[in-house]
Amino acid sequence: MDFCGKCGQANRHEVPEGDNRRRAVCGDCGTIHYQNPKMVVGCIVEQAGAIMLCKRAIEPRHGYWTVPAGYLELGESTVEGAIRETREEAEAKVEVLAPYSHFDIPHIGQAYLMYRARLCEPHYGPGQESLDVGFFRPDAIPWDDLAFHAVGFCLRFFCEDLAAGRFRHHHGVVRPSKDGVQLHDHLALPVAGG
Amino acid sequence: MDFCGKCGQANRHEVPEGDNRRRAVCGDCGTIHYQNPKMVVGCIVEQAGAIMLCKRAIEPRHGYWTVPAGYLELGESTVEGAIRETREEAEAKVEVLAPYSHFDIPHIGQAYLMYRARLCEPHYGPGQESLDVGFFRPDAIPWDDLAFHAVGFCLRFFCEDLAAGRFRHHHGVVRPSKDGVQLHDHLALPVAGG
Repeated sequence: MDFCGKCGQANRHEVPEGDNRRRAVCGDCGTIHYQNPKMVVGCIVEQAGAIMLCKRAIEPRHGYWTVPAGYLELGESTVEGAIRETREEAEAKVEVLAPYSHFDIPHIGQAYLMYRARLCEPHYGPGQESLDVGFFRPDAIPWDDLAFHAVGFCLRFFCEDLAAGRFRHHHGVVRPSKDGVQLHDHLALPVAGG
Repeated sequence: MDFCGKCGQANRHEVPEGDNRRRAVCGDCGTIHYQNPKMVVGCIVEQAGAIMLCKRAIEPRHGYWTVPAGYLELGESTVEGAIRETREEAEAKVEVLAPYSHFDIPHIGQAYLMYRARLCEPHYGPGQESLDVGFFRPDAIPWDDLAFHAVGFCLRFFCEDLAAGRFRHHHGVVRPSKDGVQLHDHLALPVAGG
């Protein structure tokens, strides 16, 4: 953010008065440009013990598998965003059942919010951003070809919960480690009747 | 966002190729400027049946009461952000116990994520952004002088849960209505042992 979005003049990078963080501040009109983390919202669509995965047709991670998910847009709720992403990436009309997980990824400024969902109609298929879409039983999930670490953590817990016959609400923080990333502060709240 | 943050030239407002929403796109270097909802994170600090509230020393809603909360910053987890806001606004060192509520406010591009917390040390007091800080029993909460609707919904559920002797996990969407705002799609997940 080197230039002001409001007037186009050069920004300075400084701590505004009363603040404690460096921001991009316009040297001309004084506009402060705040940058904040973004929410990635998506659905874990389950059907008869199998989970919907999409093979990505776009970068990043072209050709790798993930659950339908993407950035929340202005004007929509997280549930609406999760439903929209599932329609766009998997051509599937789904109903959200409950929040499932919230994993922060502070080093890339993202929070992953995933919802349990089920198909409202039998149709699904690859949307514009997907090469393929299918349902995978836990032992058939392409674990080594998942697109994103946060999705891997989420799917592992979901498979555990499926096997145990109950769902929990998962919360945690994904941080870089020597070998890639690690999940920290994992909290699994047992949801009564979940 | 009339000007490009990268090069300072004028933006056009158009739907980029492969997208389905209007974005601010630089007419010169082609940079697409995405704008997304922001997370507001905070703590419901409870002590002996009373809840910590801060009287705001800043706009918006100067002089009105709220729980310690603010925008999540880049590089921090939601729990870290909630703890930081409580330190900044109430000079209080707290420990987060569990996620409590997630309320989206799509018409202003915010998601409120609140955590249950308790004091680690007895000290608290008004930080730079607060005029006053105190603990309020449910019947003493200044309901008519709360700063934000989403905080009001959260506090009402918290008081209900306190009275019932168990905590639930609340999810919902705050939308404008004739009389102000209304909470939609409220889901209260009973948390076992909560």
